[in-house]
Amino acid sequence: MLKDLIRPHAGRILLVVADGLGGAPNVDGITEMEMARRTNLDELASKSSLGLTDPIETGVTPGSVPAHLALFGYDPHEFWVGRGAVEARGLNLKLLREDLCIRANFCTIDRKTGIVTDRRAGRIPTAKNEELVARIQSAMRKIDGIEVLVHSGMDYRFVVVLRGTGLSTRLGESDPEKEGLRPRPITALTWRAERTSEVVNEFLKKATELIKDEEKANYILLRGYAKPPDLEPINDRYWLKAACVAVYPAYKGLARILGMDVLDCGDTWESELNTVEQNLDKYDFFFLHLKELDKLGEDGKFAKKVEQLGKLDSLVPRITGMGFDVIVITGDHSTPAVLKAHSWHPNPFLLWSPWVRREGRAEFTERGCARGQLGRMSALEVMPLVLANARKLAKFGA
Amino acid sequence: MLKDLIRPHAGRILLVVADGLGGAPNVDGITEMEMARRTNLDELASKSSLGLTDPIETGVTPGSVPAHLALFGYDPHEFWVGRGAVEARGLNLKLLREDLCIRANFCTIDRKTGIVTDRRAGRIPTAKNEELVARIQSAMRKIDGIEVLVHSGMDYRFVVVLRGTGLSTRLGESDPEKEGLRPRPITALTWRAERTSEVVNEFLKKATELIKDEEKANYILLRGYAKPPDLEPINDRYWLKAACVAVYPAYKGLARILGMDVLDCGDTWESELNTVEQNLDKYDFFFLHLKELDKLGEDGKFAKKVEQLGKLDSLVPRITGMGFDVIVITGDHSTPAVLKAHSWHPNPFLLWSPWVRREGRAEFTERGCARGQLGRMSALEVMPLVLANARKLAKFGA
Repeated sequence: MLKDLIRPHAGRILLVVADGLGGAPNVDGITEMEMARRTNLDELASKSSLGLTDPIETGVTPGSVPAHLALFGYDPHEFWVGRGAVEARGLNLKLLREDLCIRANFCTIDRKTGIVTDRRAGRIPTAKNEELVARIQSAMRKIDGIEVLVHSGMDYRFVVVLRGTGLSTRLGESDPEKEGLRPRPITALTWRAERTSEVVNEFLKKATELIKDEEKANYILLRGYAKPPDLEPINDRYWLKAACVAVYPAYKGLARILGMDVLDCGDTWESELNTVEQNLDKYDFFFLHLKELDKLGEDGKFAKKVEQLGKLDSLVPRITGMGFDVIVITGDHSTPAVLKAHSWHPNPFLLWSPWVRREGRAEFTERGCARGQLGRMSALEVMPLVLANARKLAKFGA
Repeated sequence: MLKDLIRPHAGRILLVVADGLGGAPNVDGITEMEMARRTNLDELASKSSLGLTDPIETGVTPGSVPAHLALFGYDPHEFWVGRGAVEARGLNLKLLREDLCIRANFCTIDRKTGIVTDRRAGRIPTAKNEELVARIQSAMRKIDGIEVLVHSGMDYRFVVVLRGTGLSTRLGESDPEKEGLRPRPITALTWRAERTSEVVNEFLKKATELIKDEEKANYILLRGYAKPPDLEPINDRYWLKAACVAVYPAYKGLARILGMDVLDCGDTWESELNTVEQNLDKYDFFFLHLKELDKLGEDGKFAKKVEQLGKLDSLVPRITGMGFDVIVITGDHSTPAVLKAHSWHPNPFLLWSPWVRREGRAEFTERGCARGQLGRMSALEVMPLVLANARKLAKFGA
């Protein structure tokens, strides 16, 4: 229905996704946001409407991909975007419809027991990664008629693309997802996937043979088997011209899958803001992804996350000073440092436009947002609200 | 499911729809409701439960018809009621199932350029309207075997009913919806509508020829093509005896379409309340429609809307003094003066009965309602709440 109401409009929108923004209380009962310096955030909150959003549904902890899909208004119950495809598009690989994309990690295993001792191979430098990937690629071009393409990502991450016909995504993952376990065997989940499992196992066998004497990166974990998804481009869906400003490849990949332009930027929050500023006239929708809070949350670094939130606070004057008509500051999911992981807690959500009902005195914290006028809503309601405030929605009925 | 729970009961219900009630902040950050005198409203709010309702869905600005349908518990995603039919029933025309009803405006066009200079023909008096309609009707009874019925409404509004078989609603509207544009040509949107478009264009050609020398009302705009909808009557749906007290024809029309009795009343809020009072014993559900706030919002008259809200406040003792068992005061949609239009903002909602959980100290404002115990809900939840408080719903399950 929304689609029928959309009209063009010059209103400009900034969606700031502070990854892992929301938290949970430490032993003193205080969350990261509650402890952080929030002078500018609270001032903006007082002129905004606040609420909490659930990315998937109550109690469900989202991965980054479905959490972002929901924010962009693509129901994650309906649209599945596999991580392999996200990573491949994050490296800006051109994909064919039948390509099987696999997310791969170099890891360390104990040679005697075969147990994974470091899932990230001591976070080897990207240069080392590139050396190993080149070694594998030059030794392996095809397996049983299937083309093998191997591409380095950041640190210990790389992507394998298998190109051919009849490939299936229905395979078990080899990544045991924690240390102290052996990699899982890659098995076909249906008989139709049997040939694919043979090809993938053959790849794994040959590739790990090539790196087995490496000190750190002596094994490979595979997961996220996916074909490139075919989603309605965000520009068509909402009559926008959308740009993504993000440092991490996965978010760029998802943005590309949604048809956004991905802009070059440096790797600090400041340089990301510079990129937004330099492209203000070229787009009417900016997805600005800020990663660090999530990372600090996952590492359990409560105090560092508090500090980084203070940095977000210090960027608010730049964010509000760029002349946007609609500004959102929210998270994709919460990442409480006390949990060292993504969580099910709803996301703090701030919406500013000239038309919002202002909160008056307000705090941009989980509790402050829970008391906000928008109440608790689905993340799928974010885009409709954003579009309404950009005056891009016509009236429904007479 | 609701329907299976409904039982008869003597509880009497008053649903006050203050059209366009909710607002948005002015430059000082204050809404119309926040600025208004609310002595009685706030006192009632403190003994009531408060909340916010979304008529359609988050971010979607409703027209009056779907907004009211939702309030009465008819899902506007499911039930479509065309404006032509609403206007025709507003004039209390008896309609046949296959009638094509068209909402018509007299307007002013510039004779040289054909551009619409006033969509409302300077709000010509109803008497002038009647003169023109009589002129058109007496010159035109049939077009190509289709009966043509023309009926005056208020001011510049009138209704055309085409009676015959095979008529289609699938026509383009001629109303350009703003001034400074030419009327749009009326085209068939499907091949099945081609004959209808010929009839309508023939009507337009002949009718405008008859008025072309008028100073103000020298042209006609057509829109809202509709056949009479077939909705379950509200009395059957909820086991009620329902009456409508409204001044404007559209609301009377919708009430008639829902099977309510429409009571005669004067054209002030006081006289509407007199009508409710005089009919207290005859009905157990009153839909009391108060129009002015919406009009002032649409005209951008912030201060006047504030003043009119003070008037609503002054009527509260009469509203609460009539012995109703359940009282609701809410809007169909918000009409912020700063937007000069209907908006997507949720509606302030007040529910009083002896059984509600009282707010204690409360303000009947957008923010006060956002903090209310009912939270933010769909307008479709209003009737279930009203019926529950009237003790009209049996227990679900044992």
